[in-house]
Amino acid sequence: MINTQTGPQPADFADVRATNLAVVLRFVRQNAPCSRADIAASTGLNKATVSSLVADLIDRRLLRETGLSENRVGRPATMLTLDGSPYAAIGLEANVDYITAVAVDLAGTELLSWRRTFPGAAATSGQAVAAIAALARRVLNRMDKEARQVLGLTVAVPGLVDVSGTVRIAPNLGWRDVDLAGDLTKALRDPGFPVLVDNDANLAALAEHRFGPHGGVGDIVYLTGEIGVGAGVIMDGRLRRGGLGFAGEVGHIPIDPGGPECRCGRRGCLEALAGLGAVLRHTAPDATLAELEPEVEEIVRLARAGDPAVLAILDQAGRALGKGVAVLANVLNPQVVVLGGYYVALTPWVLPAAREELSRLSFAPEAGGTELVASTLGYGAAALGAAARLLDSIDSGRLPATG
Amino acid sequence: MINTQTGPQPADFADVRATNLAVVLRFVRQNAPCSRADIAASTGLNKATVSSLVADLIDRRLLRETGLSENRVGRPATMLTLDGSPYAAIGLEANVDYITAVAVDLAGTELLSWRRTFPGAAATSGQAVAAIAALARRVLNRMDKEARQVLGLTVAVPGLVDVSGTVRIAPNLGWRDVDLAGDLTKALRDPGFPVLVDNDANLAALAEHRFGPHGGVGDIVYLTGEIGVGAGVIMDGRLRRGGLGFAGEVGHIPIDPGGPECRCGRRGCLEALAGLGAVLRHTAPDATLAELEPEVEEIVRLARAGDPAVLAILDQAGRALGKGVAVLANVLNPQVVVLGGYYVALTPWVLPAAREELSRLSFAPEAGGTELVASTLGYGAAALGAAARLLDSIDSGRLPATG
Repeated sequence: MINTQTGPQPADFADVRATNLAVVLRFVRQNAPCSRADIAASTGLNKATVSSLVADLIDRRLLRETGLSENRVGRPATMLTLDGSPYAAIGLEANVDYITAVAVDLAGTELLSWRRTFPGAAATSGQAVAAIAALARRVLNRMDKEARQVLGLTVAVPGLVDVSGTVRIAPNLGWRDVDLAGDLTKALRDPGFPVLVDNDANLAALAEHRFGPHGGVGDIVYLTGEIGVGAGVIMDGRLRRGGLGFAGEVGHIPIDPGGPECRCGRRGCLEALAGLGAVLRHTAPDATLAELEPEVEEIVRLARAGDPAVLAILDQAGRALGKGVAVLANVLNPQVVVLGGYYVALTPWVLPAAREELSRLSFAPEAGGTELVASTLGYGAAALGAAARLLDSIDSGRLPATG
Repeated sequence: MINTQTGPQPADFADVRATNLAVVLRFVRQNAPCSRADIAASTGLNKATVSSLVADLIDRRLLRETGLSENRVGRPATMLTLDGSPYAAIGLEANVDYITAVAVDLAGTELLSWRRTFPGAAATSGQAVAAIAALARRVLNRMDKEARQVLGLTVAVPGLVDVSGTVRIAPNLGWRDVDLAGDLTKALRDPGFPVLVDNDANLAALAEHRFGPHGGVGDIVYLTGEIGVGAGVIMDGRLRRGGLGFAGEVGHIPIDPGGPECRCGRRGCLEALAGLGAVLRHTAPDATLAELEPEVEEIVRLARAGDPAVLAILDQAGRALGKGVAVLANVLNPQVVVLGGYYVALTPWVLPAAREELSRLSFAPEAGGTELVASTLGYGAAALGAAARLLDSIDSGRLPATG
């Protein structure tokens, strides 16, 4: 047998056309408005081929013509732009205290963005599935009213997800072996589009890669900053999941064997020192996990007011975080590590200490070029990435059927 | 501009042919002897295309016919096998106490394997370049006598190597910013084939992927076990180097802040606890770094004899190693972590403790499926991988010119 995982694949002319459709679509996504001649000039495809590919993409309502160019030398050309408005990709995220839903069209334009509080940590997995399905149904109704074709639905979960969409372990939700993709497909009565489940950090990394300011960068690590800390690893432009899909489980990297106990039973894990729980344990020991956002706002208020105890705690969390990031920098040498979740709000106090530790503990000079930055995508990154995963499969040539 | 790093690339018919040549070559590599009909049946390419591709590959002396099949149903078919004997790929490794050289033909058959002691830790980088060039010249002379066309020469070095072939830092050789590829090209008087320099762990990982028993596996980490400890990371079947090529610098992952001082100035790094130096510090405190192999043999002798102090030291090194491997397993989720270098000789005493720690410290159940094994390629893995890197570029479709 030919090794299909690692070897080059045989190519035929159907593959060539699918590849070229994807190339044209991606070029227009990045360069619209542009003409057929622009596409030919930049991609090296000949003009007749480009015309035929563009006709096909217009047929599928993935591209549309926007009229003639005016400010150009020579004959005016018909300009093209991404259409894709008849399509919607839906992303959801279930976490400890909220569910979010996002829908985007093919151009990545946000069609809706909803956030609901949700007692994820207290609910059973059955209750969680019901709540996720209820929100999904409302999104689907809205898309139906807008006459959009749904490309698929992806749910982001903070935990180990296997390739079948089963959540193997989600400690902060208290889940073990929940067939979320299967349960949700049933709850939505076999909706006729793919229902996918993936790790939240993986999906947020995809969102950063597609929508973030570091979009062109090939090697990005995204770190979730919730009660748990997880990583999504993009190397050479693709998400890297590892053998069983469990890559990026950085929350339990040992940072300080003398540190506080972690929920995993060991001491001084990254998560126990730099997760949101570690900060709250000091600032709001009575906080429940049901509503974390107000707690984070309170921390920000105290830090702004210069509360020395809070500043010390955030500096300490930042240092632990930097130690964890240094391990990732040494192992993966990413160009960028993006901090998400609650780290974004706490950036002014957490980031300086984290950067210092990263620089101190990197083996390569100048931290091997690794920049540590805060996400600009906000709390919705994982849900946005859940939708982006569906756009990625369009971009790589699996186009929706002609309407 | 189209993003050439991450997007799909436009394909044309020349690409199709190059891809298909590579597919046929690879199929024969894995399935020889086989017929043109076998190739067509397994790759999905049509028979006329296969015939034309095979003719081209026979022309370049990459394939040859081996006569008719006998034990087959139906008409006897002309069988094909890999030729490639007129070609040689050369790999060298420079380390703290030795230089090795390996040459293989296109089928991966070893043409020579030489090992020289070499005072790498004591020599200047200029002396090292001279010694490497001298050994390279002897290999080239031999290849010349055998009338083989040299595809290229790659040198493996324990250190950070940038994309230009400059060794940025090789602490155990005492090198900093050595333009090894440039210096060696000069010393060999512009030999007319590529002279490449790469990190030893990266190259050993390539060797494991191509020649090791886990060859079909997509996610492999190789750990060097010398004075330093470095990792080569293969994910989804390809070496992953990170943004600047510095991925896999695992030697300074902090394992025990109360541990012994490391040469990097910090305490308790993986290398300081589990590198060969850590073991020798206890068993042979007076050993120079000039000849490590006899020292390792002495440790093996004492361990076999049941020396309790040596057994304790090896167990301790194994535990530290397992802690480091657990970090890699959590971050990368490889299917296999292969231990190389001196770990191979010390496997019976190091591996059990390391496996225990891996299992204890993995977040995913059953260590996320990560197996920890000893290399079967021996001390020559990095040099073999250095040669393999040249074969990989043939396999991915950059064929040598027609003779």
